[in-house]
Amino acid sequence: MFLCDIGNTSYHFLKDINSYKKDVNSFEPSNIKDKIYYVCVNENISQKLEKLDNWIDVSEFIDKSKYYKTMGIDRICAVEATKNAVIVDAGSAITVDVVKNGEFLGGFIYPGVRVMKKTYTNISSVLDYSFNFDLDLDIMPKNSQDAISYGFLKTLYSEVISHDLPIILTGGDAQEFKKIFKDAKLDENLIFDGMKYIIKKADIC
Amino acid sequence: MFLCDIGNTSYHFLKDINSYKKDVNSFEPSNIKDKIYYVCVNENISQKLEKLDNWIDVSEFIDKSKYYKTMGIDRICAVEATKNAVIVDAGSAITVDVVKNGEFLGGFIYPGVRVMKKTYTNISSVLDYSFNFDLDLDIMPKNSQDAISYGFLKTLYSEVISHDLPIILTGGDAQEFKKIFKDAKLDENLIFDGMKYIIKKADIC
Repeated sequence: MFLCDIGNTSYHFLKDINSYKKDVNSFEPSNIKDKIYYVCVNENISQKLEKLDNWIDVSEFIDKSKYYKTMGIDRICAVEATKNAVIVDAGSAITVDVVKNGEFLGGFIYPGVRVMKKTYTNISSVLDYSFNFDLDLDIMPKNSQDAISYGFLKTLYSEVISHDLPIILTGGDAQEFKKIFKDAKLDENLIFDGMKYIIKKADIC
Repeated sequence: MFLCDIGNTSYHFLKDINSYKKDVNSFEPSNIKDKIYYVCVNENISQKLEKLDNWIDVSEFIDKSKYYKTMGIDRICAVEATKNAVIVDAGSAITVDVVKNGEFLGGFIYPGVRVMKKTYTNISSVLDYSFNFDLDLDIMPKNSQDAISYGFLKTLYSEVISHDLPIILTGGDAQEFKKIFKDAKLDENLIFDGMKYIIKKADIC
């Protein structure tokens, strides 16, 4: 099965067990001739893909009544693959969704690493630091780099653990966030697992 | 006593009991002829004020050994005025400082309302919403406006309350944040209180 999850920055492919990425600005989807199942949150690319017969939009086979209208299809796929967890999808945005006993309780959106770094620099040039993912979250910071790292990471951490559920990490920055969410399960294929589940349930493959 | 707290966006004056603000880009400090005590985190304005004899820099009278080198002088003043609290100073940045039994434990920096709104819009134009400060923080969001509002506000809230200390709100957006931190004490003159305390201790007035 050939799958693709398209975000704001990249095409993320899964072909059998091989996963790879292509830049949204340079990759040409019509170059793919095989049948491929996709989800896409990028409006411009969605319009392009609708015209390509071999690109099959998995979102059409989802019971969307459980979700809200503007919820990203990538988040819905991750939730579909989950029974009991807080899903932290760390990409250009960090989406956090809560699933309890198979029920989607809701979720929130937090800025991703790159855009949040820019945010601090926009406040003041003296806050132009990279985030320290090796920060000890139990100690209040006493230097500027840790003060912004804690502001970005510990606030997110405190909210996520408050749900008292297992944590699943996915998305492009999942490895970095594993340093913060030490007990989390890393599952870089969570969205693909959800797509496979939806495709199987809809019996379209 | 005539006091002024200068941030990245405004001069904040206190003359006796009257408080008012002036824009950093248009206000000319040499127009003030009276003796005035100030703190300033704005590097350009600091250079200007050093040349004016009637502007007295309060930061020179602080025992800075308790703090870290790059910590903003406004934060130090707020801490000096506090014995036991989490101080949330909501301005262009939101600084959060923890003081326990008179000891400064450390603090962190979180983006302010205006810059964080821009952050979400930079992620995607579909996230171009104002924050909903009337959000129920006990309910996971199921729409985009609440999803970003919760991402911005509940994460901060969860971290701040985890310290289990009284909360003091100050800064330009303190009124808005009172809707989130319902039990917090609103003290718009906290930095001025700290300045007065430092001036009194140094016996310079």
